[in-house]
Amino acid sequence: MRPRVHVNVAMSADGKLSTRERRQVKISGAADFARVDRLKSESDAIMVGIGTVLADDPSLTIKSPELRAKRTKQGLPEHPIRIVVDSALRTPPDASILHKGEGLRIISCSEKADTVRRKKLEPFASIVTSGKDRVDLTLFLSLLSEQGIRRLMVEGGGTLIWGLFEEGLVDEMTCFVGNMIIGGSTAPTLADGEGFINESVFPRLSLHHFEQMDQGILLHWKKGKDR
Amino acid sequence: MRPRVHVNVAMSADGKLSTRERRQVKISGAADFARVDRLKSESDAIMVGIGTVLADDPSLTIKSPELRAKRTKQGLPEHPIRIVVDSALRTPPDASILHKGEGLRIISCSEKADTVRRKKLEPFASIVTSGKDRVDLTLFLSLLSEQGIRRLMVEGGGTLIWGLFEEGLVDEMTCFVGNMIIGGSTAPTLADGEGFINESVFPRLSLHHFEQMDQGILLHWKKGKDR
Repeated sequence: MRPRVHVNVAMSADGKLSTRERRQVKISGAADFARVDRLKSESDAIMVGIGTVLADDPSLTIKSPELRAKRTKQGLPEHPIRIVVDSALRTPPDASILHKGEGLRIISCSEKADTVRRKKLEPFASIVTSGKDRVDLTLFLSLLSEQGIRRLMVEGGGTLIWGLFEEGLVDEMTCFVGNMIIGGSTAPTLADGEGFINESVFPRLSLHHFEQMDQGILLHWKKGKDR
Repeated sequence: MRPRVHVNVAMSADGKLSTRERRQVKISGAADFARVDRLKSESDAIMVGIGTVLADDPSLTIKSPELRAKRTKQGLPEHPIRIVVDSALRTPPDASILHKGEGLRIISCSEKADTVRRKKLEPFASIVTSGKDRVDLTLFLSLLSEQGIRRLMVEGGGTLIWGLFEEGLVDEMTCFVGNMIIGGSTAPTLADGEGFINESVFPRLSLHHFEQMDQGILLHWKKGKDR
């Protein structure tokens, strides 16, 4: 058992999540922001990788007061559980994700994580260990499922998304494609990591829906039949 | 004066042109192949970078006998002029692009290119020099214009496409987005090279048209107003 995994990401027309300096840039617009906020509010938990925490320091809170009120009315916490995948526990103890807004936090680390760092983070988050040198995503997701997390949204970055695709853990993906070229052979992309070599193991998607939005286009892919 | 530049490319859902080993993979399908063949046949010249020649050894010929016959009937050569951008003249003298099918070839190099290599390539192509260490694309395109080339199609790879965007030379881009994840932080992307750092200089596109095709979607961008 594992949660349903929905990757949500915005990339430039050339497939980049940000510049080579990993500086966050505006790729989508107001309509897409509202869509993402809604998607967040319908999720039990939102997950990012440590690279994204270090580069952008996101809070991953729900921005719309109406959506927060709706959650409260349903007896849910204002914000979904926020999760950082962070094999070596590099999350800064003062990271926004640990302090902004109410709600639980989980940091997922591997066995190699330092105990001093763990002690510093324990006041702000549950620390869950899986995997020897890097987080075992399959195992970690099954642990999340045991905690009642059914709908998991993943906001990036490219290394975490790659890891999820590598282990066949992605059920659907919404990808906003923006109207700009960022370029750069070292700029972060939607799926980084090692990459697949063999065409026969590429994860296959099926195009479920698409619509023009802001200055770009939203592509909604679902897990397809592998070849 | 320069030709109208149309970049045509197929990328995976995560923005990759091929695997990290630069091995060519099937990203689109029969409908897109036919579209690309038609686009080729309506171009005066087709251009690729040396990386693509070394990795894929493409011939860039028109595949459809009907489209070739149509060109012949119009008094045009069977295939458009084929162009390699190759600063250091690394094109192998036995490359397919120099031998398959009738028609002119042009290799664009910089002043640093070796004279021995030049001698070996001269029987098969016109060698045009521009730029000191790397091809000056703006100058080279103006030289192409003087030779009557008005519609120039660019087939990749990511380094050449980046160079064209960097110098503001792209008028439109068709991008087929395929239904697979390739991944890899070092896999070739639609626009590689250095990449832009500053949001204010990103080339801006406008989404002209889109349609579902094969197992993916075709996005047709045109040069937009820069911010």
